[in-house]
Amino acid sequence: MKKIGVAILGLGVVGGGTYQILEKHREFYQKTQNVDIEVVSVLEMNRARTESLGVPEEKIAANIAEVVCNPDVNVIVECIGGTAAAKEYTLAALNVGRTVVTSNKELYAKYSHELERAAQRHNAGLFFEASCVGGVPIIRTLLDGLQGNRISSLMGIINGTTNYILTKMTCAGMSYEAALAEAKKLGYAEADPSSDVEGFDAAYKLSILSSLAFHTKVPFSKVFREGITNVSEEDILDGKQLGYVLKLLAIGKNTDAGIEVRVHPTFVRADHPLASVSDGFNAVFVEGDSVGEVMLYGRGAGSLPTGSAIVSDIIYAATHTEIRYSTFKNGEEAEKDVNFVEDFMSAYYLRLSVSDEPGVLAKIASVLGKYHVSIVEMIQREKGDGKASIVLVTHATHEFAIKNAVEKINSTEIANVESVLRVVS
Amino acid sequence: MKKIGVAILGLGVVGGGTYQILEKHREFYQKTQNVDIEVVSVLEMNRARTESLGVPEEKIAANIAEVVCNPDVNVIVECIGGTAAAKEYTLAALNVGRTVVTSNKELYAKYSHELERAAQRHNAGLFFEASCVGGVPIIRTLLDGLQGNRISSLMGIINGTTNYILTKMTCAGMSYEAALAEAKKLGYAEADPSSDVEGFDAAYKLSILSSLAFHTKVPFSKVFREGITNVSEEDILDGKQLGYVLKLLAIGKNTDAGIEVRVHPTFVRADHPLASVSDGFNAVFVEGDSVGEVMLYGRGAGSLPTGSAIVSDIIYAATHTEIRYSTFKNGEEAEKDVNFVEDFMSAYYLRLSVSDEPGVLAKIASVLGKYHVSIVEMIQREKGDGKASIVLVTHATHEFAIKNAVEKINSTEIANVESVLRVVS
Repeated sequence: MKKIGVAILGLGVVGGGTYQILEKHREFYQKTQNVDIEVVSVLEMNRARTESLGVPEEKIAANIAEVVCNPDVNVIVECIGGTAAAKEYTLAALNVGRTVVTSNKELYAKYSHELERAAQRHNAGLFFEASCVGGVPIIRTLLDGLQGNRISSLMGIINGTTNYILTKMTCAGMSYEAALAEAKKLGYAEADPSSDVEGFDAAYKLSILSSLAFHTKVPFSKVFREGITNVSEEDILDGKQLGYVLKLLAIGKNTDAGIEVRVHPTFVRADHPLASVSDGFNAVFVEGDSVGEVMLYGRGAGSLPTGSAIVSDIIYAATHTEIRYSTFKNGEEAEKDVNFVEDFMSAYYLRLSVSDEPGVLAKIASVLGKYHVSIVEMIQREKGDGKASIVLVTHATHEFAIKNAVEKINSTEIANVESVLRVVS
Repeated sequence: MKKIGVAILGLGVVGGGTYQILEKHREFYQKTQNVDIEVVSVLEMNRARTESLGVPEEKIAANIAEVVCNPDVNVIVECIGGTAAAKEYTLAALNVGRTVVTSNKELYAKYSHELERAAQRHNAGLFFEASCVGGVPIIRTLLDGLQGNRISSLMGIINGTTNYILTKMTCAGMSYEAALAEAKKLGYAEADPSSDVEGFDAAYKLSILSSLAFHTKVPFSKVFREGITNVSEEDILDGKQLGYVLKLLAIGKNTDAGIEVRVHPTFVRADHPLASVSDGFNAVFVEGDSVGEVMLYGRGAGSLPTGSAIVSDIIYAATHTEIRYSTFKNGEEAEKDVNFVEDFMSAYYLRLSVSDEPGVLAKIASVLGKYHVSIVEMIQREKGDGKASIVLVTHATHEFAIKNAVEKINSTEIANVESVLRVVS
């Protein structure tokens, strides 16, 4: 039976979960996978963590050198997070030919080229299933399940924190602030929630998933990103009235015009499958030319679900004899000189505050018409003080057209656009 | 670049789709997978088929010997169906060390041991992703994505034909006969639909998926099977009134008591994710001890979706250097002496025709009570002629208890049980 020695860097939420799974299932993997996986080393300075997990003293390494030089270590699991020590240690491990399994989306989205080059040079494996959508095996699905397809689009809810907050705002009528506070209390949101609520986390993941799906590096910097910090209860209620639910969607498309990647709060119709993906759950739709639409759903974060993805990578590395060190099957990007579409097409939701006087609506419609924006549906209601609120949804149009139209409307004195949100029907 | 010669046995719906995908994407796979896949031989006697697909004359083999002896053939795709020629040809291919990719659930469910032994003996690969749930990569997910989990249950809609029929009965109010006729007209159902409507097809798939999920051979013969041929419009309407939708579910469980595998029409709550899986779509829930609940959704059948799964297997075989020839990672069953649970637990829906007279309900409740069956909800309505209809849903109870209770009720003169259906809440 093959013996695999594992080292875990960082025993926080994900590293701790990985440790627990490997300890619990060692015999199970011997029986079912024909491989003996033992955690032989951990790098974790917080003694409370190592003690609560029951890590034997002799397995606690003093520093990274001790881990990477340990001849019993075959696979190093990076669960430190961030891009400082995580990057340094990952490179140190790859540079001595150790296979690395990481859950670090930021590290992988930003430095995949550098990591892949190091892995390739030193014949080391590099796996990152846990970096995207927690326990849902979306990366394996793209690489090994749908690889016969030309994939035209990805669309999904890939951040659990924002989905929890939006679910609470939608279903419990909470304000953004109250929902965020509850998410923090329950451990869904970190003390500094900006990576989640500003959409960075989803953008890292979209960069990784789009690179795999579209067979070309999709840099993080190319992802259009808008978070949920400006989402108001009013928008959520107005959307509900029109039959929509607000979700932070990540959308990737590969069309003749180029690649389009964006993360933003989006209204989806209440009967769309993504509308019912609630709380910490995630879901991703993939559209392939042969398979049609496929959807994967599951827990996008958490100790054991993400640990499940890490352990899957460890077993994959142990039971597949070829070495995988690149995002791309053939070890390099298949296509170059990609165009990234900035002026993408979408339907839009606009909420305007207007003077409650005759002719206002005609003027707004006229401005929108000049930018070839046409209206699908509209609600108007009194706000008092001579003001009214207009909420409208447009047909699909160009992002730049909406931006220009909104600027034009705001330059008049009759109306002010208070919200612009994208709509997927 | 690695060169892979493919032979396709049978150019029907699935074989034809596979041929089309491989022809269309040869260059795409060179670029993205670093492998050159060429269809070098087909075995198909129907000239209309080979001509409509544009298969060159010189690639059409005269017989199976010509295919398996062709030194340019590395992978043989079996799309014949049934278990006669399909089994003979598959064994012939494996016996000369050719990798076989099959979409044949009946063949695999019934003869996996024999096929796996032949593959192992001759160092040949054996792949069967296309045998279950069409284009949805459920087998890869179980083997390579969730393999770190102890899987406790599988539950899903894994037959498109019956799902189409039940969707039409539920949403369009059609009778079973009318829905079946439409399914035949649209190509969803075969001329002899018994494999689908009697639940055989789903039972083959459940046997395969449960074997993988639970790491032990789950013989087809152990699958409890009930088809949809006796489903009435009345039941569907009564269920709707109680908030349920009827689906043909495949359910596999691995508990301390043993393994439980069953295929039967089942009421699911209208807000359950499976309730909205309509027409030809399939979906499978998998519950793992670390990952929690994961769901995969997509097209469960059809030329290109199933072709997508076959092509995925071909690429997998070509790009992974280890040979996989068994359902089980370690090449043999991990556990033996499994108990199969026959007296499983479920909630039940009963529809009874009763004499419309005082005390009847008390008598029925009393009989159910004797068998420890308790009632969750109930509807009673007049039918005229001194008869009434009672529809009730029970708490979870034992299958044998319900059978005994129904027998007892039917032995009285006051009531007759007209339908017994299982319920998942």
